[in-house]
Amino acid sequence: MASKHTELSDVHGADIRTSSFRDDEENAFAHKVQVPAHIPLVREFEDAVKEVFFPDDPLRKFRNQTPTKKYLLGLFYVFPIFEWMSTYKLQYLKDDLIAGLTIASLAVPQDLGYAKLANLQPIDGLYGSFVPPLIYAVLGSSRHIAIGPVAVVSILLGTLLRHEVNPTNTALYFKLALTSTFFAGVFQAGLGLLRLGFIIDFLSHAAIVGFMAGAAITIGLQQLKGLLGIKNFTTKTDFISVMRSVWRNTHQWSRYSILIGLFFLAFLLITKYIGKRKKKLFWVAALAPLTSVILATAFVRVTHLEKHGVQIVGHIHKGVNPSSIHQLEFSGSLVSKAVRIGLITGLVALTEAIAIGRTFAALEDYQLDGNKEMIALGIMNIIGSCTSCFITTGSFSRSAVNYNAGVKTAISNIVMSIAVLVTLVALTPLFKYTPNCILAVIIISAVISLIDVRAAYLIWKVDKLDFLACMGAFLGVFFISVEIGLLIAVGISLAKVLLHVTRPHTAILGNIPGTNIYRNIQQYPDASRVPGILVIRIDSSIYFSNSNYIRERVVRWVNDEDDRIGNSKGVALQFVILELSPVMSIDTTGIMALEELCRTLQKRKIQLALANPGAQVMEKFHAAKFIELLGDEWFFLTVGEAVHVCSRQLNSSFEN
Amino acid sequence: MASKHTELSDVHGADIRTSSFRDDEENAFAHKVQVPAHIPLVREFEDAVKEVFFPDDPLRKFRNQTPTKKYLLGLFYVFPIFEWMSTYKLQYLKDDLIAGLTIASLAVPQDLGYAKLANLQPIDGLYGSFVPPLIYAVLGSSRHIAIGPVAVVSILLGTLLRHEVNPTNTALYFKLALTSTFFAGVFQAGLGLLRLGFIIDFLSHAAIVGFMAGAAITIGLQQLKGLLGIKNFTTKTDFISVMRSVWRNTHQWSRYSILIGLFFLAFLLITKYIGKRKKKLFWVAALAPLTSVILATAFVRVTHLEKHGVQIVGHIHKGVNPSSIHQLEFSGSLVSKAVRIGLITGLVALTEAIAIGRTFAALEDYQLDGNKEMIALGIMNIIGSCTSCFITTGSFSRSAVNYNAGVKTAISNIVMSIAVLVTLVALTPLFKYTPNCILAVIIISAVISLIDVRAAYLIWKVDKLDFLACMGAFLGVFFISVEIGLLIAVGISLAKVLLHVTRPHTAILGNIPGTNIYRNIQQYPDASRVPGILVIRIDSSIYFSNSNYIRERVVRWVNDEDDRIGNSKGVALQFVILELSPVMSIDTTGIMALEELCRTLQKRKIQLALANPGAQVMEKFHAAKFIELLGDEWFFLTVGEAVHVCSRQLNSSFEN
Repeated sequence: MASKHTELSDVHGADIRTSSFRDDEENAFAHKVQVPAHIPLVREFEDAVKEVFFPDDPLRKFRNQTPTKKYLLGLFYVFPIFEWMSTYKLQYLKDDLIAGLTIASLAVPQDLGYAKLANLQPIDGLYGSFVPPLIYAVLGSSRHIAIGPVAVVSILLGTLLRHEVNPTNTALYFKLALTSTFFAGVFQAGLGLLRLGFIIDFLSHAAIVGFMAGAAITIGLQQLKGLLGIKNFTTKTDFISVMRSVWRNTHQWSRYSILIGLFFLAFLLITKYIGKRKKKLFWVAALAPLTSVILATAFVRVTHLEKHGVQIVGHIHKGVNPSSIHQLEFSGSLVSKAVRIGLITGLVALTEAIAIGRTFAALEDYQLDGNKEMIALGIMNIIGSCTSCFITTGSFSRSAVNYNAGVKTAISNIVMSIAVLVTLVALTPLFKYTPNCILAVIIISAVISLIDVRAAYLIWKVDKLDFLACMGAFLGVFFISVEIGLLIAVGISLAKVLLHVTRPHTAILGNIPGTNIYRNIQQYPDASRVPGILVIRIDSSIYFSNSNYIRERVVRWVNDEDDRIGNSKGVALQFVILELSPVMSIDTTGIMALEELCRTLQKRKIQLALANPGAQVMEKFHAAKFIELLGDEWFFLTVGEAVHVCSRQLNSSFEN
Repeated sequence: MASKHTELSDVHGADIRTSSFRDDEENAFAHKVQVPAHIPLVREFEDAVKEVFFPDDPLRKFRNQTPTKKYLLGLFYVFPIFEWMSTYKLQYLKDDLIAGLTIASLAVPQDLGYAKLANLQPIDGLYGSFVPPLIYAVLGSSRHIAIGPVAVVSILLGTLLRHEVNPTNTALYFKLALTSTFFAGVFQAGLGLLRLGFIIDFLSHAAIVGFMAGAAITIGLQQLKGLLGIKNFTTKTDFISVMRSVWRNTHQWSRYSILIGLFFLAFLLITKYIGKRKKKLFWVAALAPLTSVILATAFVRVTHLEKHGVQIVGHIHKGVNPSSIHQLEFSGSLVSKAVRIGLITGLVALTEAIAIGRTFAALEDYQLDGNKEMIALGIMNIIGSCTSCFITTGSFSRSAVNYNAGVKTAISNIVMSIAVLVTLVALTPLFKYTPNCILAVIIISAVISLIDVRAAYLIWKVDKLDFLACMGAFLGVFFISVEIGLLIAVGISLAKVLLHVTRPHTAILGNIPGTNIYRNIQQYPDASRVPGILVIRIDSSIYFSNSNYIRERVVRWVNDEDDRIGNSKGVALQFVILELSPVMSIDTTGIMALEELCRTLQKRKIQLALANPGAQVMEKFHAAKFIELLGDEWFFLTVGEAVHVCSRQLNSSFEN
């Protein structure tokens, strides 16, 4: 070791490739940047398809199995119910039963209200908690999700439908709602089948947080209608319209409604707070809505306050979901509207369900195949649309209750479904005297948890641009409408992607004293520049959408360095080393940009050197003959090595 | 040095941070990964705006200047003509004069033909070579570009216009053409003013190569009408329709047209070949078109072949561009069509002009401000639309001739403009007997150079996906239409961006023997894995559109490694080191994904370690308290250090 080191002065000036200034380097010098072995086109294609469509390797289990086992696994794959049913233990049943009944007690009053958000009949909401959960229990692979109509998707559906058809035209409106649900299902299943589910990843977390909060407040404001007992409520959803509607109709306010509503709102919020503080008492919060409904209904039944301005649900037909296949329209002008509405609501519904599924899968450490989930949700909505259900998905609030209640398997969804069935065939008349104000406050207390102030604060702290997306979506929903808010959320998310791919980061690297390591001088203030050499790291693959920027940016770094040197009268710039470690791929436009850069620098008598280009990049440099153009000797394995060679040349040029 | 090394065995087991296994490392250990100094929000915002909108630092020259100088520079910036005029030398004039006259001799016959591609009158083409070049000479900063109508944009305009208005309705058709040109100019100038010019970078080089080749062949096929003398030619542009039209109308073929056409086509191609082989003889090729026109016109004038089936240009009005402000329509149904057509043709025209400008700027090493060029081109087209010119831009073929003729400044454009002016006021009657077939072959010989087989071959060799984009655009234009080809080109380009941002590359790193360097084991076959430790490099920033994929992909790498270890009965996996050098930024979704990954690995008793996270990433980890979650001790400056610490823990756990 020591002898090696003393050799240094002796070999000075000898062939660079075999000499060494640090023992670590010597070994590195023996390794040149390699052009990887050629990969046959077919395998390259296979790999690409796998990464794009099967990155989570869903067929992993099938590998190295007997045909019988493969057949069984295939059955389990398509119908997860067989998988968990085959290992179902009786002791799970108690938990699943409790969880199922708990979410049913939540679902029934919520469904009545959510149907109103979509401008549909209360019973349509109940239908959505009967058939869809059954389908999902058979096809879905999340154990914790609770299926049914949800607030945000319902109000979005209602807003979009209202633009096309007046809700007073109930027959046509219902037709469009069901056809839209059908197409939403088709889109969901289609995305899953084509394994294009990653499309929902284009809605960023920040945008979702903002959108959800905005939607929650909008939904809450809509409940003022029921809470105050206003009859001529605005059909718009923005804050200003709603507030105007509230203050202009003070004469319609019903004080009994308000009193009953506020009383039970307090009750719901207090129980919610208790459930949140003590996880064991979650059932207090979970059972509060049903308790409120029972108490309030009994109270109105006895006092007959409906004759004193308290609006009630009124008569609800008994009976299970009627078939609605004949309601679906596949021709005429309705179809294109239904396709558009289905696309939007379907994607938002997917976003909510997949987010829930992933959260619980991560908590309980099981793998969830997002694309397969989409197929399950899609089929669920297709069948739902044939059985009078408007669009359903996984519910944030009910899924959380389901999880807290200790659910073990999708049996809880089946239990809920049966409980709703019982309600449908026997209990609906009991809701006749349920005051609307009680449904309103149940919805208010349910959507409150969609407003995630802590998440918004974290986003503000971590990423200001993300916060902008969050606030944009929030304000869009709040002041304009749910769909515009969604549009803003998607727009800002895409703009961020665009920004990311056109304006990649670059950094000047400096040497960390006493080491051979080069790091961003902005992050490591003691890292020092090497005189006469500029080390620039390119922090992204180079391809058509950013290659022009990268070329311009490097030239700008060089200009800045020239200015700096000019001011300090230092050593003139003679070498630019591009650290390409982060550059994972390059396309023809990118190579052309580098060639151009090379020529520009040559004209200014600056030599370009490249450090650590990756496998794919070297392959393409090789194919494009860029290695010959720049010269094989200007490719280095590390920045350290490149700086060493360059500074040696600098020194020798000074000596001459 | 040697003593340090022998110390190694003594300190084994001591605090890792202070021990060392390589002298290089010891110094590195003293440097922990740093959270960069906090940057105030305003400066962060300023930096972001600068990178997004002013990456080329266009106001660089203005820095540190006196107010007078700044004022002068401002004048030069807005009107580059003052800048180069103030340093103009008389000896430039000869070169500019020759270049200007040469391109004029090319422009006049080409313009007559290009106007036909757009279904307009021949003289409309000439108008476009008079006013726009003058405007560009004042506002533009490229010295080499030659302005006028160009083939690809003309046929695109013609195709789009024909969809909306029947060309036989000349008045309305001309109105729409001019209004579209106006809006094209508005878009171009608008993009430049808003500094959004990078949008044209979203059309990849490969897509452009394919699109141009397809458009060239399509344009060539359209010339069969003039060459063969067919009167009832199809209005479609796809290969099959054109061929069908050619073979069904054999009775209309004019043998004199064909003979004259083929004769001069041979002449043009031979001179073109000569000009290409000997750069000094470029003028042979450049003057050939005008020579052909003169000879053919004289020939027809003398022989009166127009009475034997040879179609001639016919009478052209004399006179300069009439004002056409009253032709522009800003109300009614025409506007939305004009906006759409203007947007498409404007962007394609920009793409061509900017590509030319950049090519020559790189060849002659001057900086070109793309956004400023767009403003110049936009104003040029706005004024053009008021002076009876349809959309103009920089021409590939004429700019190349301009360059080869030794052009020095934009004076050549002015010279060309004056030559065209002379033609307009005095020479147009001379074109009466010019046979259409001669214009056809001039266009054929002009567009041939748009077919870049070598570029296509290079693309095939370098990047198969790029080649797909290239062929998609080519076949789209060839078999369907120019606009569909363009749509395919844009679509494939965007799909590639999408793929890039959702499916970033990851790689397993191995140790290069005898060094402390870790590299992709696929690129460096002798790099070896470290038992019990998996080193994965993430080759992209982590953010919402890819964070889910990255999480899944890392888990898959871990599963694969488990399988591999299971088969070989090696040391069980205990550490996963993520090399984050290429990860330049992370957003809230990305941090959530890492947190989730951390939990998933913990459940499998695998410790996560991170190597070399960048400045911005550390800042966000800090803000999101992720450093506390993972533990400060699991952040390392290099992979080498991380592996060292991990393998030491592995060894001690074996010893216990």
